[in-house]
Amino acid sequence: MNYTLQQIAEALGAEWKGDGSLRITGAAEPGMAGADDLALAMSPRYAEALQQGSARAALVWPDADWQAMGLAGAVIAPRGRLAMARLTQLLDPMPADPGIHPSAVIDPSAEIGADVHVGPLAVIGAGAVIGAGSRIEAQASIGPGVRLGEGALIHSGARLGRNVVAGARLIVQPNAVIGGDGFSFVTEAESHVESARAELGQGSVSADADPTWHRIHSLGAVSLGDDVEIGACATIDAGTIRPTRIGNGSKIDNLVQVGHNCVIGDHCLLCGHVGLAGSVTIGDRSVLGGKVGVSDNLVIGADVVLTGGSIVLSNVPAGRVMMGYPATKIDTQVESYKALRRLPRLMRDLAASRKG
Amino acid sequence: MNYTLQQIAEALGAEWKGDGSLRITGAAEPGMAGADDLALAMSPRYAEALQQGSARAALVWPDADWQAMGLAGAVIAPRGRLAMARLTQLLDPMPADPGIHPSAVIDPSAEIGADVHVGPLAVIGAGAVIGAGSRIEAQASIGPGVRLGEGALIHSGARLGRNVVAGARLIVQPNAVIGGDGFSFVTEAESHVESARAELGQGSVSADADPTWHRIHSLGAVSLGDDVEIGACATIDAGTIRPTRIGNGSKIDNLVQVGHNCVIGDHCLLCGHVGLAGSVTIGDRSVLGGKVGVSDNLVIGADVVLTGGSIVLSNVPAGRVMMGYPATKIDTQVESYKALRRLPRLMRDLAASRKG
Amino acid sequence: MNYTLQQIAEALGAEWKGDGSLRITGAAEPGMAGADDLALAMSPRYAEALQQGSARAALVWPDADWQAMGLAGAVIAPRGRLAMARLTQLLDPMPADPGIHPSAVIDPSAEIGADVHVGPLAVIGAGAVIGAGSRIEAQASIGPGVRLGEGALIHSGARLGRNVVAGARLIVQPNAVIGGDGFSFVTEAESHVESARAELGQGSVSADADPTWHRIHSLGAVSLGDDVEIGACATIDAGTIRPTRIGNGSKIDNLVQVGHNCVIGDHCLLCGHVGLAGSVTIGDRSVLGGKVGVSDNLVIGADVVLTGGSIVLSNVPAGRVMMGYPATKIDTQVESYKALRRLPRLMRDLAASRKG
Repeated sequence: MNYTLQQIAEALGAEWKGDGSLRITGAAEPGMAGADDLALAMSPRYAEALQQGSARAALVWPDADWQAMGLAGAVIAPRGRLAMARLTQLLDPMPADPGIHPSAVIDPSAEIGADVHVGPLAVIGAGAVIGAGSRIEAQASIGPGVRLGEGALIHSGARLGRNVVAGARLIVQPNAVIGGDGFSFVTEAESHVESARAELGQGSVSADADPTWHRIHSLGAVSLGDDVEIGACATIDAGTIRPTRIGNGSKIDNLVQVGHNCVIGDHCLLCGHVGLAGSVTIGDRSVLGGKVGVSDNLVIGADVVLTGGSIVLSNVPAGRVMMGYPATKIDTQVESYKALRRLPRLMRDLAASRKG
Repeated sequence: MNYTLQQIAEALGAEWKGDGSLRITGAAEPGMAGADDLALAMSPRYAEALQQGSARAALVWPDADWQAMGLAGAVIAPRGRLAMARLTQLLDPMPADPGIHPSAVIDPSAEIGADVHVGPLAVIGAGAVIGAGSRIEAQASIGPGVRLGEGALIHSGARLGRNVVAGARLIVQPNAVIGGDGFSFVTEAESHVESARAELGQGSVSADADPTWHRIHSLGAVSLGDDVEIGACATIDAGTIRPTRIGNGSKIDNLVQVGHNCVIGDHCLLCGHVGLAGSVTIGDRSVLGGKVGVSDNLVIGADVVLTGGSIVLSNVPAGRVMMGYPATKIDTQVESYKALRRLPRLMRDLAASRKG
Repeated sequence: MNYTLQQIAEALGAEWKGDGSLRITGAAEPGMAGADDLALAMSPRYAEALQQGSARAALVWPDADWQAMGLAGAVIAPRGRLAMARLTQLLDPMPADPGIHPSAVIDPSAEIGADVHVGPLAVIGAGAVIGAGSRIEAQASIGPGVRLGEGALIHSGARLGRNVVAGARLIVQPNAVIGGDGFSFVTEAESHVESARAELGQGSVSADADPTWHRIHSLGAVSLGDDVEIGACATIDAGTIRPTRIGNGSKIDNLVQVGHNCVIGDHCLLCGHVGLAGSVTIGDRSVLGGKVGVSDNLVIGADVVLTGGSIVLSNVPAGRVMMGYPATKIDTQVESYKALRRLPRLMRDLAASRKG
């Protein structure tokens, strides 16, 4: 990269101060920045580190005294992470080499849009449709009947199963699996698990007459909106009859499991190791922290925040902030937790007063 | 697909009513069903949705008044999900195109059974044996010495390591790994972790003299029974000396970890994100809900139910239903949980009575 | 394999007794051992099983009466698992077939060291450097600019993204992903999640004006020390500007998530399903049990032990042993847990005494 400070400020839609003609060839943390790097110093706690590096220009907080910090120029970032989004997008040397590698195996019936890149040893199945400007990276699999909108980026080793459909600008990280079969099995007669669920609180159950699991096949595929991202080794299972759905702008982190028939709204975030059992509904804009688990057939409303590690065993109304196992409104949870920490002492006091 | 209603009923082993000659070309949820779809209305809560769709035939609950719901025919499903298993098996357009893609790389010493399909860019190692009628899909890996029974279905990107053995009808979802190395390391002298485990409840430990981890290699491979299924991105580690084992008819969901030397019985279900540390034993027909964790060397009896999110730190007797962290008999757990919710109020009451 | 008992003892650096010339062709559990197997009987609880097998030689505990157990020879293992490490390393028939399979796709600008093996259908990108004696197994991907030290072992389907750097002897299990993009998104204005985090204990939040997530790209890659191992389907995300780092001798188990910008010290163990959010620091020699989760930007000291299932929501000092959700010093946690189990009875007693 090679920009002037002014060009960077303009690309960020940000105000700049000092010498706008400074040449910037990279970005770095303040203490490690060289003379041609833009130092990333979006809060006062980086002021000291700036002195240790050699940066002449920095991305700084609104009222930073950039001259006192020895800088020749500065870009003002009122919202640091938003500036980081724009800056890293600008600096990312995205490859742009359309063309189909000769080792890729593409079914003759597939439709490949304009300016598509297909990497070495990728496979594209019968009847698949790949939108213009997409990149299918090395060793990825696009199953039969898959339809991808324009500008998709499918990383190495990702697997898209039969009939997966996506809007524009889908990003799939390496080794993610979209459209594998749902985990859906049933015994001939009522099983001991069904009986345990029907009568909650029952401490033990007896064995089944015929424990054979019969398989419910997954015919419904997966449907993804525009601007969806799926993380590395995440798994989004196909629906049984209708598609498993993820709405526009929703982002799914690494190692997340989305069960068959789930419906996830728009602009949701599901962080690492989130697990949704089958047929869960998540409202728009909800955010699930790392390792959150949601039991099957539950409905989580819109604008919900589930803090990391929560295990959800009942429906959650819109706008609720929840925590714990089982997940509870966060204020209730914190109150219980504090009381529990004081409980051993209470018990000692009560025991002492009885003796006394 | 194209069946008459009567043909579907017969394939399901189910009773049918009305016009058995109705042509059925698909299945759909009641509200979205077209005129030639079989609507899936296995409980009374779907009665209303049926009116919104255009289905002339439906899969219904036993005493449904199908004529009053405007249907011309109905298949009776006393156990809805079992009917779904049979119906989806019937409707699944399983590919049937035996033959070996020219881009697959197959060691000359491998034995490929009759009617086997090997997809593009798959790899089959030295001495592997693939049972008749199996499908090895695109870009899958079959390691040296692997032996698969008849009718295996190995999806795209799945990895079967050296000497993995399986019975008939193994299904492996995309990007699963069977037979990776176990996570087994040891320090030269006793480590601080061993000391923490030996003296539980010790709040702090001191550093090791030599923290180098020496690696225990995994020579034992994995042995799977008949009718086993392994989910997408699940990992089943090889045993140290003898195989890690999974019994007949057991089903493993996505992103599950089964550690080295585990022995899982017949007809078990392990749901998404279950994690078994090394050398865990699970009895027949046990069901582990999503995100259950089991500590190393524990024994879980037969017919056990572990509810989602349970963390198991001690052995579990047969037939037990467990919940929580640490996992406890569910009735005990529910009682503790209810008491905890009432605890803040109790503490306020006690404080008030002291003052009063 | 084919060694004498004496040769095995010498390879293990161990003392041996009896007939050192005994031929050993394998290792086995005591009850299943044949006449030419070395039985693995490192503790007295295996003494009985030895009688059921046919072993003439065994790996035994220090004061074992090997002659009374009917053995003709024995190797003494004062620390059983350490002996197992050395023995399994000795017995592992590691393949040694350098050479590049003609189906691999290697960019002409890549530098491949001496005696490197590249398996079928592997991909090596532009400018990659592969150290001498490394093995890149079938269908693995080495991204552009990756640099691997000598003796790397990259298993089938593993993905190393652009510019990943590793020291010597890196082991990557199948389908692991190193250097995927971090999960890092930001809204234009403060989101409801930020507001929930800023004011902890707030039970509900309201919707955002503009819920669009802007993407922070990951330009920083991943840097791994010497002797690092990464498990199957584990995901190590690239840093934003500087690398995500893992120190020398640290081992990462299957299905672990390491977020962008994390810094993991030397000789750490992260067990299955551990999840680290972004920018977490882990000190040297710390051990995280299965399913441990750590919230973003936290600092875990050196020599810390986090027991399985712990969810860490605040910084942890060096040498601390922690447990629970939220993770707490283990003695405090155990005390709370015991008190909670006694709480229902206490409540019944208090209720009775009020009535009385």
